[in-house]
Amino acid sequence: MPLPQEFHDIAERVNNWGRWGPDDEIGTLNLITEQVVREAAGCVRSGRRVPLALPLRQDGVQTGVIPGRVNPLHTMTAINQEIFGPGTVATTDDAVTMGLQAATHWDGLAHVSHSGRLYNNRPADSVTAHHGASCLGVEKATPIVSRGVLLDVARAHRTGQLPGGHAITPEDLDAAEEQAGTAVRAGDIVLVRTGQLRHYLAGDRHAYAFPSPGLSLRTPEWFHARDVAAVANDTLTFEIFPPEIENLWMPVHALDLVEMGMPQGQNWNLEELATACAQAGRWTFLLSAVAEPFVGGSGAPVAPVAIL
Amino acid sequence: MPLPQEFHDIAERVNNWGRWGPDDEIGTLNLITEQVVREAAGCVRSGRRVPLALPLRQDGVQTGVIPGRVNPLHTMTAINQEIFGPGTVATTDDAVTMGLQAATHWDGLAHVSHSGRLYNNRPADSVTAHHGASCLGVEKATPIVSRGVLLDVARAHRTGQLPGGHAITPEDLDAAEEQAGTAVRAGDIVLVRTGQLRHYLAGDRHAYAFPSPGLSLRTPEWFHARDVAAVANDTLTFEIFPPEIENLWMPVHALDLVEMGMPQGQNWNLEELATACAQAGRWTFLLSAVAEPFVGGSGAPVAPVAIL
Amino acid sequence: MPLPQEFHDIAERVNNWGRWGPDDEIGTLNLITEQVVREAAGCVRSGRRVPLALPLRQDGVQTGVIPGRVNPLHTMTAINQEIFGPGTVATTDDAVTMGLQAATHWDGLAHVSHSGRLYNNRPADSVTAHHGASCLGVEKATPIVSRGVLLDVARAHRTGQLPGGHAITPEDLDAAEEQAGTAVRAGDIVLVRTGQLRHYLAGDRHAYAFPSPGLSLRTPEWFHARDVAAVANDTLTFEIFPPEIENLWMPVHALDLVEMGMPQGQNWNLEELATACAQAGRWTFLLSAVAEPFVGGSGAPVAPVAIL
Amino acid sequence: MPLPQEFHDIAERVNNWGRWGPDDEIGTLNLITEQVVREAAGCVRSGRRVPLALPLRQDGVQTGVIPGRVNPLHTMTAINQEIFGPGTVATTDDAVTMGLQAATHWDGLAHVSHSGRLYNNRPADSVTAHHGASCLGVEKATPIVSRGVLLDVARAHRTGQLPGGHAITPEDLDAAEEQAGTAVRAGDIVLVRTGQLRHYLAGDRHAYAFPSPGLSLRTPEWFHARDVAAVANDTLTFEIFPPEIENLWMPVHALDLVEMGMPQGQNWNLEELATACAQAGRWTFLLSAVAEPFVGGSGAPVAPVAIL
Repeated sequence: MPLPQEFHDIAERVNNWGRWGPDDEIGTLNLITEQVVREAAGCVRSGRRVPLALPLRQDGVQTGVIPGRVNPLHTMTAINQEIFGPGTVATTDDAVTMGLQAATHWDGLAHVSHSGRLYNNRPADSVTAHHGASCLGVEKATPIVSRGVLLDVARAHRTGQLPGGHAITPEDLDAAEEQAGTAVRAGDIVLVRTGQLRHYLAGDRHAYAFPSPGLSLRTPEWFHARDVAAVANDTLTFEIFPPEIENLWMPVHALDLVEMGMPQGQNWNLEELATACAQAGRWTFLLSAVAEPFVGGSGAPVAPVAIL
Repeated sequence: MPLPQEFHDIAERVNNWGRWGPDDEIGTLNLITEQVVREAAGCVRSGRRVPLALPLRQDGVQTGVIPGRVNPLHTMTAINQEIFGPGTVATTDDAVTMGLQAATHWDGLAHVSHSGRLYNNRPADSVTAHHGASCLGVEKATPIVSRGVLLDVARAHRTGQLPGGHAITPEDLDAAEEQAGTAVRAGDIVLVRTGQLRHYLAGDRHAYAFPSPGLSLRTPEWFHARDVAAVANDTLTFEIFPPEIENLWMPVHALDLVEMGMPQGQNWNLEELATACAQAGRWTFLLSAVAEPFVGGSGAPVAPVAIL
Repeated sequence: MPLPQEFHDIAERVNNWGRWGPDDEIGTLNLITEQVVREAAGCVRSGRRVPLALPLRQDGVQTGVIPGRVNPLHTMTAINQEIFGPGTVATTDDAVTMGLQAATHWDGLAHVSHSGRLYNNRPADSVTAHHGASCLGVEKATPIVSRGVLLDVARAHRTGQLPGGHAITPEDLDAAEEQAGTAVRAGDIVLVRTGQLRHYLAGDRHAYAFPSPGLSLRTPEWFHARDVAAVANDTLTFEIFPPEIENLWMPVHALDLVEMGMPQGQNWNLEELATACAQAGRWTFLLSAVAEPFVGGSGAPVAPVAIL
Repeated sequence: MPLPQEFHDIAERVNNWGRWGPDDEIGTLNLITEQVVREAAGCVRSGRRVPLALPLRQDGVQTGVIPGRVNPLHTMTAINQEIFGPGTVATTDDAVTMGLQAATHWDGLAHVSHSGRLYNNRPADSVTAHHGASCLGVEKATPIVSRGVLLDVARAHRTGQLPGGHAITPEDLDAAEEQAGTAVRAGDIVLVRTGQLRHYLAGDRHAYAFPSPGLSLRTPEWFHARDVAAVANDTLTFEIFPPEIENLWMPVHALDLVEMGMPQGQNWNLEELATACAQAGRWTFLLSAVAEPFVGGSGAPVAPVAIL
């Protein structure tokens, strides 16, 4: 089924192709200027650090529904091995196999395409098994450090977690922004909390996966209007799942990644952060979330930290 | 061959076992207090971000000498797959297999043991193939964010890179510290530049691996005296390789990790940072270097960023 | 809980330690002599080949209950890549990550130990993360080719598949042997059909895993009395699961592998073979089932074929 | 550079498209009839089994030149783990990551394409990252068991190993066939020994890789004329490398796999077999070489055995 007219209309409005030149491969990360970073550093008040990554383990969030996106398999290659002889210093070594987007991650700009095109009008077939993403690979991303703003939509709805069927609207974002007491601005990284991760934290990865609240088709324009650098949330699917419009799958991915060139984060643990922000009465912080630079990667694990 | 008396003498002087209680699993990361983090954020002047991770790729720094520590194998599991039918949004997905310490990484506290013991007197056999590091795993580390200080020892020696046989001494560190115009203090993360990585950047991973300059047996006391939180450098082996004392392999690993409980970083790319610091005339910055939280990991990939 | 006296009594009766010398690493595979192989080749009548391996795929038989024993993850590293330029011959390449015992496999002699010992009194700690099984590794096995005998216990019970709680007894084996019209003899490889695999073939891997019929504690003596070279069946667990005797887990593994030194096969697809044997009125054939020679492997995938 | 006319002329002469119907996915394996298998079983005289697979290990034959075709990484997931409590039976488990064609393997029919086509006129783009080879996958192959014939070309040249630059000609095959004292016939699997593997066995994988003797452009017609089912040899590249005709890379792959639909084997260890055949004065045997059935695989590991 082809993408509907509504999708194409929004796409036109949020499109950033060419905005930073024909060779640009980082999209909205261009919006993180040195001034933005300086001001972000100024958000640090208490010095409290809140980690946002899920532990990487075999019983991670993946359920097996997405082929190949396997939870981390951590294996040992040496355990207290006295390589240089008995009584010498002993070493332990280990290895991992995992989907790059299996756990807390950034979607890179090569993660989705539509109509044969990636962000900035790059051909979709520039992605190959041989090279991975030969353009727009996640290793091209500049270090993702900026002001972070937590939009706690669950809290704005006076609930611990939104129901599975909740499509987050621009109005939801407005309400959370107002509650956060700040205006989202150019270069910000917005973290949208749904509370959905509580299913996983309570041991139920299937409930976490489906059905899921998420960002609705109308939100890309909200982010685009504010020139946000990146958006992450605490769900497996980022957008509402199953989709709002029958048979229109992953439209927000296509708008954010292909049209805007804006990285998306998924499976971020925003629970401790929500508490910390509420305690501090501030929902802004320095966010450091540098993607692991996998060459040709369509995405990458990240261990984000919010510094309040 | 048993460890020599000299080793045991130093070990006694730098030992931190019990300092943060019998249950401590993070060692010198305890030294990164909220105040330290606040002051670190104050180091941000220009807002320039310098990434310190090597790109993750199959032709990475590993030569095959360390069994199991394989360079990243990046493979594709979906390429522009129109999962939901022709004309729909298409997705790309990928996976990786790699040694946790194959590229830019932190050594966790379970990476080495000696005399059957890990840091804080934990038994070495608490590491198993089933669980990995059941204590002192790298996932226990708090988010590694602090003031970073670049000690550019190569520069202090007025050279681009130290020779393979150079054992970095406390006097070398003093000289670089003086040149940096700051006093290393409690909670700092010290980055020691040798320039050795230039071999790899020039395409010669074998020259990079061996022989290597590195931190000498006398440096752990220097770091201990200043209560440094962590130390990283731009070599494969961290310490001088082959070792200073015949048959005394990896003594600095044993002192730093087992005795002090201090994480070590290896394969950090300090080239751009060295230039940036020299240009700015400042060798201090906010450093964010959060370890990927592999449960039971003896180490972890990290994508560090220095923010000047 | 220590192993009960009953276990130790049987262990003594089936023990083969020292039988083929103190250095032996292949156990009952010694029983496959050249004469045995010659006679096995004589079993080929029609020339029909029946494959016994399950397809290797991500939705394989593993349910995730056994940590690390992951189903095959098949990924692409090149797809129709014209390496040498446009218009040249194009190549496709792929890779896999899997548990060695994830699918149709042989348990090697290093797969289990008890009381600190492996087969032939080798110390259990000869298995390390560095080397894997430094003795008794699956690569030591001689090529497993011999006369195969199908003991179709389900058929002897006039059923398509045994119930989950069925413990296969020596009497069951006797009945199936009689029905097979042959006497099991030295060097034979016995395939015991339960029909349990039908659960998996019908799409229910959980029902396949548990509860499972399997070989009871009394069967190792039956195999030992006949000097069988190896035994395989069509279950995930080989022996009855949950176990016959409360808290006595995996006793048959310990008796077969540790005491007798006899390889065990699991997840073999015996469905087509059962039909073919019934059609031919013969339950003996040439069996070729050479283990993939992973150095230090505790087990290995195998693609067995029965030639009738 | 487009493929030259000479290539297309040969292609036309050896083409098997449509020979076994438009839906055929196994090519020349159709030639292994039940009668062929029966007669092959009749080749067993002594019952001696000779394994032909290289041990699977991290220091395998791959040099790193072929991206993604990594040597086996064998890692441990459990070592003598007393899962059910102290004193119970302990289990060891392991995992592997490897290129499917990294060691002793069969090239499947999806391994190469030319001009956008696979064997039997299937479109090359039927291979995807999502499914692998959605047609012609290696799991489609019937069990590869037939009469094996060793053509020891090195021996026919009265040398232990052919020089790196030696292109094996039809005349070489004739000479070796005559020496073998048999006529190659329909359904046979031909093993062509060059002796090149001795480089690897002597510890030099680079000399093994390049330059390599191999089958010349003229040999596919020789195999086609005799209706051989499959051909394997003891080299990394199968055909002569670098190629005979400048810029004509991998023509034999394209002829064998795409035009004829004939599986190729590489990295087979024919050393012990050569000795055994010379001792027995017979160069024919029962060969069992069933490919591991990786679904969608472009190739597969195999542990072949010759039974004399």
